Amino acid sequence: MFAERINRLQGSLVREILAVASQPDMISFAGGLPAADAMPKLDFTELPASLSQYGPSEGESWLREAVAAEMSKNGVTVTPEQILILTGSQQGLDLAGKLFVDEGTPVLVEAPTFLAAVQCFSLYGAKFVEVGLTPQGPDLAELERKLISEKPRFAYLIPTFQNPSGVCYDEATRQRVADLFDEHNVVLLEDEPYRELVYDECDRAPICARLKAAKWVHFGTFSKTAIPGLRVAYLACHPDLMPHFYKLKQAADLHTNRQGQWAMHRFLTSPDYPAHMERLRGYYHAKRDAMAASLDKHFHDLADWVVPQGGLFFWLTLKADIDSYALLQPALDRKVAFMPGKPFFASGRTSNHLRLNFSHASPERIEEGVKVLAEVIRAHR
Amino acid sequence: MFAERINRLQGSLVREILAVASQPDMISFAGGLPAADAMPKLDFTELPASLSQYGPSEGESWLREAVAAEMSKNGVTVTPEQILILTGSQQGLDLAGKLFVDEGTPVLVEAPTFLAAVQCFSLYGAKFVEVGLTPQGPDLAELERKLISEKPRFAYLIPTFQNPSGVCYDEATRQRVADLFDEHNVVLLEDEPYRELVYDECDRAPICARLKAAKWVHFGTFSKTAIPGLRVAYLACHPDLMPHFYKLKQAADLHTNRQGQWAMHRFLTSPDYPAHMERLRGYYHAKRDAMAASLDKHFHDLADWVVPQGGLFFWLTLKADIDSYALLQPALDRKVAFMPGKPFFASGRTSNHLRLNFSHASPERIEEGVKVLAEVIRAHR
Repeated sequence: MFAERINRLQGSLVREILAVASQPDMISFAGGLPAADAMPKLDFTELPASLSQYGPSEGESWLREAVAAEMSKNGVTVTPEQILILTGSQQGLDLAGKLFVDEGTPVLVEAPTFLAAVQCFSLYGAKFVEVGLTPQGPDLAELERKLISEKPRFAYLIPTFQNPSGVCYDEATRQRVADLFDEHNVVLLEDEPYRELVYDECDRAPICARLKAAKWVHFGTFSKTAIPGLRVAYLACHPDLMPHFYKLKQAADLHTNRQGQWAMHRFLTSPDYPAHMERLRGYYHAKRDAMAASLDKHFHDLADWVVPQGGLFFWLTLKADIDSYALLQPALDRKVAFMPGKPFFASGRTSNHLRLNFSHASPERIEEGVKVLAEVIRAHR
Repeated sequence: MFAERINRLQGSLVREILAVASQPDMISFAGGLPAADAMPKLDFTELPASLSQYGPSEGESWLREAVAAEMSKNGVTVTPEQILILTGSQQGLDLAGKLFVDEGTPVLVEAPTFLAAVQCFSLYGAKFVEVGLTPQGPDLAELERKLISEKPRFAYLIPTFQNPSGVCYDEATRQRVADLFDEHNVVLLEDEPYRELVYDECDRAPICARLKAAKWVHFGTFSKTAIPGLRVAYLACHPDLMPHFYKLKQAADLHTNRQGQWAMHRFLTSPDYPAHMERLRGYYHAKRDAMAASLDKHFHDLADWVVPQGGLFFWLTLKADIDSYALLQPALDRKVAFMPGKPFFASGRTSNHLRLNFSHASPERIEEGVKVLAEVIRAHR
């Protein structure tokens, strides 16, 4: 009765965890939600009535211009014609799956990687090729080896404050990755939802800006810096890919809601925007430091981690070889939620990692939750 | 470099026609745009800040409840749990394509049918089975024959004010179609974007409400009755299908924009809504009558048509065997745009039909445009 791809449509254990995690008495490190109290207030008072009509599939010209200008500031020189406005960057993953993935198509991803990308590309039949991550970025020798042996059609990478690992590729790695993609002519999908959530100085120049031959797609979103509920994001891409993305977007939902595009453009171009971003970075910076302090206090003998220079997550590697899934129920029983490592690996291998989100809970609750989590692990051993 | 499905991604000649048609000096009967001056004013003054956060993939509970209540009024008894809020009903077609269509899957459609549905299902590899339309609905003998011989996985039907034909299935046909789908256990996709745009009394009870065994999906939208730019629509479906649609929706764009859902719910439940619908029907009714009068005057010897009881289109069948595509350029040269019949046939066969939209132009421009169109046809013969 159903299409074959439906057999690949995974029921998401993550959603079940998040459902439990959203209970009011729960200290949740599980989700990746931006902090609601740090979101700008929406003002629709001057919304033009003309935006009530159907709009262009590629997005509003003024928003595409603002995005192109913003990207050029970040070193990616693009024209507005290379920008496609999306109904959230999840849609970008879906459109990319449609554009590139047949059943059995090799797709290179980091290990670990963003689980929703794995689910999305799986739906179209992707065969995943994993490359391990170091604190500087992907293992370059392994990357080159697999580009040659596995011939992936594209690679999906999150170079800046990676979800879940928090890794930010360093300058040399970014250049080497670009050179490898040019040399082997592999399409790069560069996903950067967290790039503006930066707390320490670090290399963030997009890799796609360094490509000379390889085709590329760059995903960006306003959901982590402004208003996720509006569902407005964008992609920038090599000019050759745009006509396909345009048609795929039209077939997917005609166009992104225009009121959301207007509100986001208004915010993006308002004098408040830089101040908002400063506040937001300061707000998350403090929470990151709070979790770092709590981890030093309670986890020094339990796990290893690198303090993330940006983004929303700590990624812990337990010193003991424990499947972190086994810790979930005991933690939930004590009203603390976290995300086990397993779903972040395309291979689905068991993992002794924990992903801890620090943007949601208050510093006090962070200290309390981290303490309880340490007790749960000690009790388990 | 690309997935195979991209070879099936049609460049849409329709978009090119619409681009030309949107020139200010053009009299356009080509599009299907609701009239902007008949759209309600959006009021976001009481928009809750809580809607800025990520929302539920299935949609907001209060909107699902309102939609379920509305559908029950129309005879389709559903619970809110059977409602999925969509980013426009085009998204419903895409999700249905993902759920049901493999390469070569037989899909039954009316001839003619909604061209965007053909493009959408084609992307997933649908093999189309056409059934001809009569003024009462599909040719029932042909329908039964093809349900048996072609074994379609689902049928996509637009029973009420069909686009492009304007046909509204009569009562007996609706019941017979339901019986046939039950008997042969074929999934029904019932698309009803125009059902509320009714100008004359007619049978409109949804077919899915009559099904006893067959699975079904019913698509509805607010784009034709309210604000297309918000991109808010919905589907209702058999309970067995909902878990799949839920996951597919989440993989497609996480959820529909919450501000749009809020504005639409506010409008749908406001005391203004019934009055707005009355005004809207009266407004389009007058335009339909204007075009009917102009057609009687200028087309009586050129074409046959049935005056549509609702919707947005007249569907003309030329008495002469002329490929209506051949008339397009001469008409555009004289600043009148229309939609030739060809793209509305899944088989892509040449057609002597014209689709004329009557909701966009003023009555004066309608008379002028119809007159010019008749002159173009006479000159061609």
